[in-house]
Amino acid sequence: MTTIINEHRAAGQSIGFVPTMGALHDGHMTLLREAKKENDITVVSVFVNPLQFGPDEDFDAYPRDIDADQSLVARIDIDYLFHPTSEEMYPKQDITLTVGRLAAVLEGAKRPGHFDGVVTVVNKLFNIIKPDRAYFGKKDAQQLAIIEAMVDDFNHDIEIIGIDIVREEDGLAKSSRNVYLTDEERLEAVALYNSLLLAKELIDGGETQTAVIEEEIIRYITSYSSGTVDEVAIYQYPELIKVDKLEGQCFISLAVKFSKARLIDNMIIGGL
Amino acid sequence: MTTIINEHRAAGQSIGFVPTMGALHDGHMTLLREAKKENDITVVSVFVNPLQFGPDEDFDAYPRDIDADQSLVARIDIDYLFHPTSEEMYPKQDITLTVGRLAAVLEGAKRPGHFDGVVTVVNKLFNIIKPDRAYFGKKDAQQLAIIEAMVDDFNHDIEIIGIDIVREEDGLAKSSRNVYLTDEERLEAVALYNSLLLAKELIDGGETQTAVIEEEIIRYITSYSSGTVDEVAIYQYPELIKVDKLEGQCFISLAVKFSKARLIDNMIIGGL
Repeated sequence: MTTIINEHRAAGQSIGFVPTMGALHDGHMTLLREAKKENDITVVSVFVNPLQFGPDEDFDAYPRDIDADQSLVARIDIDYLFHPTSEEMYPKQDITLTVGRLAAVLEGAKRPGHFDGVVTVVNKLFNIIKPDRAYFGKKDAQQLAIIEAMVDDFNHDIEIIGIDIVREEDGLAKSSRNVYLTDEERLEAVALYNSLLLAKELIDGGETQTAVIEEEIIRYITSYSSGTVDEVAIYQYPELIKVDKLEGQCFISLAVKFSKARLIDNMIIGGL
Repeated sequence: MTTIINEHRAAGQSIGFVPTMGALHDGHMTLLREAKKENDITVVSVFVNPLQFGPDEDFDAYPRDIDADQSLVARIDIDYLFHPTSEEMYPKQDITLTVGRLAAVLEGAKRPGHFDGVVTVVNKLFNIIKPDRAYFGKKDAQQLAIIEAMVDDFNHDIEIIGIDIVREEDGLAKSSRNVYLTDEERLEAVALYNSLLLAKELIDGGETQTAVIEEEIIRYITSYSSGTVDEVAIYQYPELIKVDKLEGQCFISLAVKFSKARLIDNMIIGGL
């Protein structure tokens, strides 16, 4: 991969990069199409990164289908699919990366070590692929904020581009984990998005107390689905600071547990 | 710096890099001459990195003389001297780097956090300068091993080149900290190198017990100088594993305290 990349860079070609854990869906394809549009060469990586899974998480069960990924990627003529093994990526690891306060809230608080694993692998991939631009979904808003912080801290000369959440027709955010939903849960899962639309309505109507908005979201999801609200919170973005009153750019973050899937969704509320 | 580097890279020029904390001496000049020989463009950085100094260490007192550094560098026609401020290098730091077992011995054990600071700044500098080759002195043998470990762990596409220790005429390893020695201590300080030569003689004579060699070194230094031996140890290199019996590639590491200076020196003993 390094040799190939160096040839393209020597030829003065720009490189767009989309890191993924595979199980590619329309969300990823949107990132890839965007990368293809803006760069001479596009690289997608498929690597289920063991470091970002906790001991009780779904590393073994995480969906893997490299053949399906490959044919999806071929369909839009992506230049390279980089698919290393864990042994190639982690022959050993003497230096560890730790995300501070940005990982102490939201998903990071629920999944200790998760974002340390994310920045570890993304830093490695950035150095292997040497992209001009890298593309991340806004669905993982905390991840996007942390990647941007890493790029600043590490002086990576890479433009990070956040891409809007891609949704199913009914509004459910696309995710590799949606396959874990039962048929009934799949129908109910639209409640996540609808609760965010409800929140937006409240805010447009003048509501600024985050506690009130959060309460309404919980009431809605609990009424319209069998899911359990794991977290609903309103944070300043990208600082990831909790606020009592909407101010500046904020995002509403949701995590809801179904029988086998924990789904997340969010909405960014621009400068109020 | 990023703009300049990108222009040189776009022009297909190779970049050699020598990171320093300034107070340049013949040791650095040797690194720079080597970098100049092997690359189209040579960059030296001068940055006294606050992160690699402990609270009780000599950060404030560390010798700084950018004008002297600049004229030395100009003398051999180095292309760029990169001299950022602490504010430019560390506007904030959300992600921290931690060196594991490799920092738990030798200098690292005496200076908690020191090598974490070293890899933090070198990783940043590598991403700013994007060198093909980076040059480090073998005097800081543990540092060299840790930098090489970081390059592997982070997949930096950079060749690390270790340069032999440069010595004064009497054998004292050149160091920015030698200016802290009194005139008398300066004369005695040659005992470090001489004790290493004595150790080599013992080894050439068949001695393999590291405890015996270490004892002889301590006896020598204590007899011929007013310095206090802070550490003498024989480790496998680059694994930094302590050994009782010489085996494979090892290095003998010394740290000796004088009134105001703590000097280090070492000798690599090749495959026995």
